[in-house]
Amino acid sequence: MNVADFVKRLLVGRKLASTQLGETLLPKRIALPVFASDALSSVAYAPDEILLTLSLAGMAGFAFSWQIAIAVAVVMFLVIMSYRQTVHAYPSGGGDYEVATVNLGPTAGMVVASALLVDYVLTVAVSVSSGVQNAKAMIPFLAGNEGLWAAVVVLILMGMNLRGVRESGSFFAVPTYGFMIAVLGMIAWGLFRIFGLGEHLSAPTAPYEVVGSSDYEPFIGLAMAALLARAFSSGSAALTGVEAISNGVPAFREPKSRNAATTLALLGAVAITMFGGIIWLSNLTDLKMIDPDGNSHFEQNGVPADVAHETVMGQLGHTVFDQFPIGFYFVITATMVILFLAANTAFNGFPVLGSILARDGFLPRMLHTRGDRLAYSNGILVLAGAAIALVLAFNANVTALIQLYVVGVFVSFTVSQFGMTRHWTRHLKTEKDPKLRSKMKRSRVINTVGLTGTGIVLIIVLASKFIYGAYLAVIAMVVVFLLMRAIQQHYRKVAVETAVGPADARLLPSRVRAVILVQEINKPTMRAVNFARATRASTIEAVLVSVDDAETKRIVQQWDEQGLDLALKVIASPYREVTGPFINYVRGIRSDNPRDVVCVYIPEYIVGHWWEQLLHNQTGLIVRTRLNFMQGVMVTSVPYQLASSKYAQHRAERHTAAAWRRPGRGQVRLGDYIDPERKE
Amino acid sequence: MNVADFVKRLLVGRKLASTQLGETLLPKRIALPVFASDALSSVAYAPDEILLTLSLAGMAGFAFSWQIAIAVAVVMFLVIMSYRQTVHAYPSGGGDYEVATVNLGPTAGMVVASALLVDYVLTVAVSVSSGVQNAKAMIPFLAGNEGLWAAVVVLILMGMNLRGVRESGSFFAVPTYGFMIAVLGMIAWGLFRIFGLGEHLSAPTAPYEVVGSSDYEPFIGLAMAALLARAFSSGSAALTGVEAISNGVPAFREPKSRNAATTLALLGAVAITMFGGIIWLSNLTDLKMIDPDGNSHFEQNGVPADVAHETVMGQLGHTVFDQFPIGFYFVITATMVILFLAANTAFNGFPVLGSILARDGFLPRMLHTRGDRLAYSNGILVLAGAAIALVLAFNANVTALIQLYVVGVFVSFTVSQFGMTRHWTRHLKTEKDPKLRSKMKRSRVINTVGLTGTGIVLIIVLASKFIYGAYLAVIAMVVVFLLMRAIQQHYRKVAVETAVGPADARLLPSRVRAVILVQEINKPTMRAVNFARATRASTIEAVLVSVDDAETKRIVQQWDEQGLDLALKVIASPYREVTGPFINYVRGIRSDNPRDVVCVYIPEYIVGHWWEQLLHNQTGLIVRTRLNFMQGVMVTSVPYQLASSKYAQHRAERHTAAAWRRPGRGQVRLGDYIDPERKE
Repeated sequence: MNVADFVKRLLVGRKLASTQLGETLLPKRIALPVFASDALSSVAYAPDEILLTLSLAGMAGFAFSWQIAIAVAVVMFLVIMSYRQTVHAYPSGGGDYEVATVNLGPTAGMVVASALLVDYVLTVAVSVSSGVQNAKAMIPFLAGNEGLWAAVVVLILMGMNLRGVRESGSFFAVPTYGFMIAVLGMIAWGLFRIFGLGEHLSAPTAPYEVVGSSDYEPFIGLAMAALLARAFSSGSAALTGVEAISNGVPAFREPKSRNAATTLALLGAVAITMFGGIIWLSNLTDLKMIDPDGNSHFEQNGVPADVAHETVMGQLGHTVFDQFPIGFYFVITATMVILFLAANTAFNGFPVLGSILARDGFLPRMLHTRGDRLAYSNGILVLAGAAIALVLAFNANVTALIQLYVVGVFVSFTVSQFGMTRHWTRHLKTEKDPKLRSKMKRSRVINTVGLTGTGIVLIIVLASKFIYGAYLAVIAMVVVFLLMRAIQQHYRKVAVETAVGPADARLLPSRVRAVILVQEINKPTMRAVNFARATRASTIEAVLVSVDDAETKRIVQQWDEQGLDLALKVIASPYREVTGPFINYVRGIRSDNPRDVVCVYIPEYIVGHWWEQLLHNQTGLIVRTRLNFMQGVMVTSVPYQLASSKYAQHRAERHTAAAWRRPGRGQVRLGDYIDPERKE
Repeated sequence: MNVADFVKRLLVGRKLASTQLGETLLPKRIALPVFASDALSSVAYAPDEILLTLSLAGMAGFAFSWQIAIAVAVVMFLVIMSYRQTVHAYPSGGGDYEVATVNLGPTAGMVVASALLVDYVLTVAVSVSSGVQNAKAMIPFLAGNEGLWAAVVVLILMGMNLRGVRESGSFFAVPTYGFMIAVLGMIAWGLFRIFGLGEHLSAPTAPYEVVGSSDYEPFIGLAMAALLARAFSSGSAALTGVEAISNGVPAFREPKSRNAATTLALLGAVAITMFGGIIWLSNLTDLKMIDPDGNSHFEQNGVPADVAHETVMGQLGHTVFDQFPIGFYFVITATMVILFLAANTAFNGFPVLGSILARDGFLPRMLHTRGDRLAYSNGILVLAGAAIALVLAFNANVTALIQLYVVGVFVSFTVSQFGMTRHWTRHLKTEKDPKLRSKMKRSRVINTVGLTGTGIVLIIVLASKFIYGAYLAVIAMVVVFLLMRAIQQHYRKVAVETAVGPADARLLPSRVRAVILVQEINKPTMRAVNFARATRASTIEAVLVSVDDAETKRIVQQWDEQGLDLALKVIASPYREVTGPFINYVRGIRSDNPRDVVCVYIPEYIVGHWWEQLLHNQTGLIVRTRLNFMQGVMVTSVPYQLASSKYAQHRAERHTAAAWRRPGRGQVRLGDYIDPERKE
């Protein structure tokens, strides 16, 4: 069993027999890449966003980049510290949704869930868009149709996930470590060239001056604060994905929580180093970014387009590896791959969360129980559809998409941290051991600081980005929230309506009256007749609705030829209609025998193509639909498999069976059922 | 029971008890308007098409209008004469489809049927378009959006027919006689003013000269022949609808055939008089038409648009009733109404033909047996959809639509006449009575002349109009033909596959094993359990697929609380999947007991809204679909009606029940069934 699959299983909360699992638990060196791709990949676009936001203030703005970077690093430190507490407190790996639900109630859980669902969509959109933008440095012809190419990438990811391509640990390890080597190597080599060799490195944009937006030109007072807030908010995108490890604690080797906490610290250290290093190197090489929407521009005319709109990663790669192009290609390829990998993790996370939400009654129940494969398919399609809509609508413009992003992340961070402070307070009420108490108090302080930090960031993000696009994310979250609440309320209403009363088990109908709908004398009808007779109902009636005298005569004659010990009743239908007279006939049986139950047998043709369905079963379908509304009537389909159904059968089986009949795992065999009463 | 309803019943071939029918048989004075609206309405656009086609040759063209009119009148005479023979030979009213099928085989019948189906669509499109074009003379603001207004009219007709508004005899009589009075009165008054009072009447377009297309400018030789052929083809639209009486023979009073033949002659006389009169009056008043597509135009500039594009009916109305505007409004209103009425008859004819074709296995069987209302609904929707597409695509341009029309009419005329010659030849082989023989020979001559005439017209129509649009009609007919043949072949294949063998009636399974799918302990499940227990199957098993240990424990406990004398079996499902393990469990029962039949009981929630369906029954649906492919398994839905289902029930009943529960007719009561064996 591969790692990704395994992790997924754990995330959805099922306990597999622990004996089977030991062998596949993750060492830290594998756990890091499995959970870190999302968090690390964001350093590929967060520095860009900081710099280009600052560019709105012209050349003066760039001077603030290191201060923004420090602020982001501080928040990241706080978040990492906070999640280390979560990892210890919730080794089950429930994640923010569980923390919020347990400590703050289901409404808070739903808030977190809506934020996370929206953010999964944005993760795909932003990561893929950024991947395409970075790829342009290598493959210039992508320029102009970024949205389309991003949509193609999403479609490829969707296809891979629909076909159930499962990632192994190395699937994550190679690109993640590759990316870390590429970025850290580039930073190290760049710094060495500058400080060790004393070279003067200049980014491609170094020779040019940037003219900002007149809105920010003075760059003092409120305007400056607002712009710095916006830059900081965009830079906070670097924090997305940090929470992934807290979902995956059960996948770690023992001691799970400590190993997870260590990995989290490691991730934080790497991310902060990479992020800080990129910003530092950008400052050293005089790297400049301009706003892609044209709010800032270069003073000089004739700056080549591929230089003017190159990403930070591309510019640094060109600068540091100016005499070593392989290095440049390595950096860009690694960046692109990790971004697509980050998008791919959302394709795993989204349906997993959907399954948990379905279990709790916030999403259609079938997402939980119908079996992995189909639930995943629906989730994957929804996610891909939404992401494609976004990248096309925004033409894979990362800067525009970033305005929507981050809100959800910080909503879930904040709610989750609030939940953690509640968690510690709750436990402190009952805990007596002074050593544990002081540890808990310490944890509560950390989470409170985390709550304060993420709360402030959330406010900054909302205030500085709302009109630039964050409102769209907020609307989406509210819509998802309301939808989930409506579904929950519906399920609750139905549960109340269908709750078993004391008498329900004794409402045994006295007799069963079988009615067979006959329309033609053929194999399907004979099968229905034979099956109905085998049930030994109290009464059996074969009923034909006569719509055409000649036809009726022929059918009755054919019936007699069968030599059955059963009369065919014919109902007159002056208006050539089958449903009405038949339904009324059944209704009559019901009202004549209110204590009995009527079982209506309908022969059904099982066909191979959807269009064949239009040619068969239509009368049966209408009869069934009408009968469904009648109390005390059950409808039995007696299927007759036409030759053409073989192919459709294979298709149907491929869908459901493939998912649970995985090689290497014993199939569930017949007779494998257990009586849990006896077992416990 | 009203007339239209009655006629429809007869057309579809059902024999109602003759005692009930006597009172409603049609006298000739009612039969004429019932069957003539389509045929008469075409004189509202056929003269226009002749004149505007001739206008392509400039002023020289119009001189030929009376020759074209005579040619059309001759063909109409031939067709009327021919159909008088059909009426005598086929008093059952089968129409062209029956004549072709009986005498030339089912393929010929299908050719006629495809031609008729396509022509029904064109009848609606052309009639409504012409109605809108004529209405412009009264309501000028329709101009510019003719296509849209025509689509609105089609939608209104569709709505009326979907709601089942039934026309009475007077519904036909008033507008048809009104139209006859209006047109014949206008012709008579116009001729009286010219010849009786010696006035000089000038059409609004009389002062202007027409410039033709350079293609036809010399108007000699081949170009002239081609243009005259086109004008004649377009004028032949006057013949559409003539065949309607031959479908309706059974609706006439005795002697049916003779009365029908007389009515046919009457129709022919009226139509030829109206058609000839309009052309004559047009010539006398110097009326001119120009091609709406701009191939001909007036020499003078500044001809007002409402004059330049006014219909013949509008121009004549203005001219003849220049001092009596009420007469003008009467003519235009009557024209508009009869055109919409003609479209409405297609809404009756199309589903009737569809029902006959379904009976013969060329269309989905449900169209025949599902009951009038629903079959009609589907037919009406298809017809309206196709007609709306046409009027929008052609912007209600009658001239463009006429290019597609007529082909189908003459295909069915020609095939039907060919069938009639075969009919007489066949009967002559066995007939001995010399008096009858000479009568048959006479009929055969008439039909042979008719065949020659309609065959020549068909060739002229195809040759002269093919590239102008007739090819579209031909393609549509071929597609419809192929579709019907594919459906027929499918039904035949299935009939062979499902034909009852000698052993089929004795394939009685030895025992029934009941399996109940349990997912939750609630009222629907308990109902399924109780119903299954009531059937007293050989074995009953309640089966739960365990996807979550905690949930399973809870369900098992709840089950025990019910105190049922039935154990709940739990199947382990390591992959949180319900379908696969359950299917496999059932498969196991089957293979352990190959001679038994398994009956799977699935509780089903009956809900009120489509979206509720997404929240319930999904697992059951998948299980059912998979089980359908398994031999020896039947699936019983045990419906549980949620409170919200009430509304949906009303909706479902309105659809089917309304159609056969007509006021005035005794409902089919319970116990009303008859055993036809005993009866005969």
